[in-house]
Amino acid sequence: MNRFSFNQATANYWPMEELVAGCVDAGVSKVGLWREQVAEYGLAATAKLVRDAGLTVTSLCRGGFFSSDGWYDENRRAIDEAATLGAPTLCLVSGGLPAGSRDVDAARRHVGDAVGELVPHALQAGVRLAIEPLHPMFCSDRCVVSTLGQALDLAAPYPAAAVGVMVDTYHVWWDDQVWAQIARAGAEGRIACFQVADWITPLPEGALLGRGLPGEGCIELRRFREAVDAAGYAGPVEVEVFHEQVWARPGREVLDAAIAGYRAHVA
Amino acid sequence: MNRFSFNQATANYWPMEELVAGCVDAGVSKVGLWREQVAEYGLAATAKLVRDAGLTVTSLCRGGFFSSDGWYDENRRAIDEAATLGAPTLCLVSGGLPAGSRDVDAARRHVGDAVGELVPHALQAGVRLAIEPLHPMFCSDRCVVSTLGQALDLAAPYPAAAVGVMVDTYHVWWDDQVWAQIARAGAEGRIACFQVADWITPLPEGALLGRGLPGEGCIELRRFREAVDAAGYAGPVEVEVFHEQVWARPGREVLDAAIAGYRAHVA
Repeated sequence: MNRFSFNQATANYWPMEELVAGCVDAGVSKVGLWREQVAEYGLAATAKLVRDAGLTVTSLCRGGFFSSDGWYDENRRAIDEAATLGAPTLCLVSGGLPAGSRDVDAARRHVGDAVGELVPHALQAGVRLAIEPLHPMFCSDRCVVSTLGQALDLAAPYPAAAVGVMVDTYHVWWDDQVWAQIARAGAEGRIACFQVADWITPLPEGALLGRGLPGEGCIELRRFREAVDAAGYAGPVEVEVFHEQVWARPGREVLDAAIAGYRAHVA
Repeated sequence: MNRFSFNQATANYWPMEELVAGCVDAGVSKVGLWREQVAEYGLAATAKLVRDAGLTVTSLCRGGFFSSDGWYDENRRAIDEAATLGAPTLCLVSGGLPAGSRDVDAARRHVGDAVGELVPHALQAGVRLAIEPLHPMFCSDRCVVSTLGQALDLAAPYPAAAVGVMVDTYHVWWDDQVWAQIARAGAEGRIACFQVADWITPLPEGALLGRGLPGEGCIELRRFREAVDAAGYAGPVEVEVFHEQVWARPGREVLDAAIAGYRAHVA
């Protein structure tokens, strides 16, 4: 359990104080946090709350959305927030195509350029940017980075200390090249964080809130954990699940289910 | 317009006789047909109807679903039906993971083996099997073949006259490797057919019926048509769209919209 991290989006409506108390009570020492929830509770207050509870923040979700106006300032703020929380990693979801655009190549190039513009501030803040490939079903409207190989290509021009990748089983499980790309990510020192969710069907409308808890779906989760380990990754394993039916359950029940799924299917 | 083919699934509820008459009236000489609709009208009757109308059947959808019991006999029947209709190509949608399985590698190997078992009958019938990669969002429940590269790898052991691939813009547009794989498909003589649909969001529940008519979405459709052409493909361009709102419109209106979208965004 020493690598298990509970991403708060898994129990999306669990208030921050209850989340932190619940993790402590369950013997969980690591959490992944989201900017919206942190802002609601207050950045400094959240940082104090988790520190006083002895918790570590494994990642902050999320920066990115480079097709939006104001992305540069917004991402600088996100980096600063991660630093304040002591989170080593800021997860970047790149954003989709600009409105009306069909040029996915240009959108992907822009992601690489935008990440590069953030590198100096990330290095200064001691926060690593983690480019996250999202499932190709999100390519047009949420994230033009669709494979681990693409994420690594985009990261390649920049120092590994500043730019890594997020490996999330939900997004990459279908890719027959993912095993080679995980090995490459390890060799290039780019695995910033590892997240786990399971693939279940049918997808809900909009596709966003369709993830399963570990073990509920068809992904070889343990094979992924062993692959990132074999690539040299020894960091946290975040369980991060979005599903309305999971969110409808009490936070502590969801945490216990995430722990049970992690033990049975990932660890 | 000499390459345009209207896949009947685009106007899913248009009765066969009206479809054929509508195509003739619109100056469309090619159609893609589906086994269910053909069975409903009758195989011999459909073959006579389209032949008497002077139409060509560009493809029959679909065989595959190799995770189902009885796949071998079912696919032999599908090959025979394609031959009866004069369709040069039988589209293969591989099927997803067997119930309860998490072994996508094994499922993909099985697809390759199953295709191989069908090769002799396909050669004898003069029907080419077209392995179709489906979008990765269908990987678990509909088609474990997720990229054009995978489809070509699976086809590679068999004669190109017997086994090709289906290139469908909807399924492969997000893939940054698709341009290289289209060139490879051409060089290997594997492009059996080319289908066009556009990517629109939000996805509906279940994701299946979310396609846009050409021009409604974000895919560089003409770039794809030019890419398959540059790879040596000179065959039909099938418009194949699944969407409840399209299906709710009169068949002839849908045909006209497909033609207009094809002219403006594909041809």
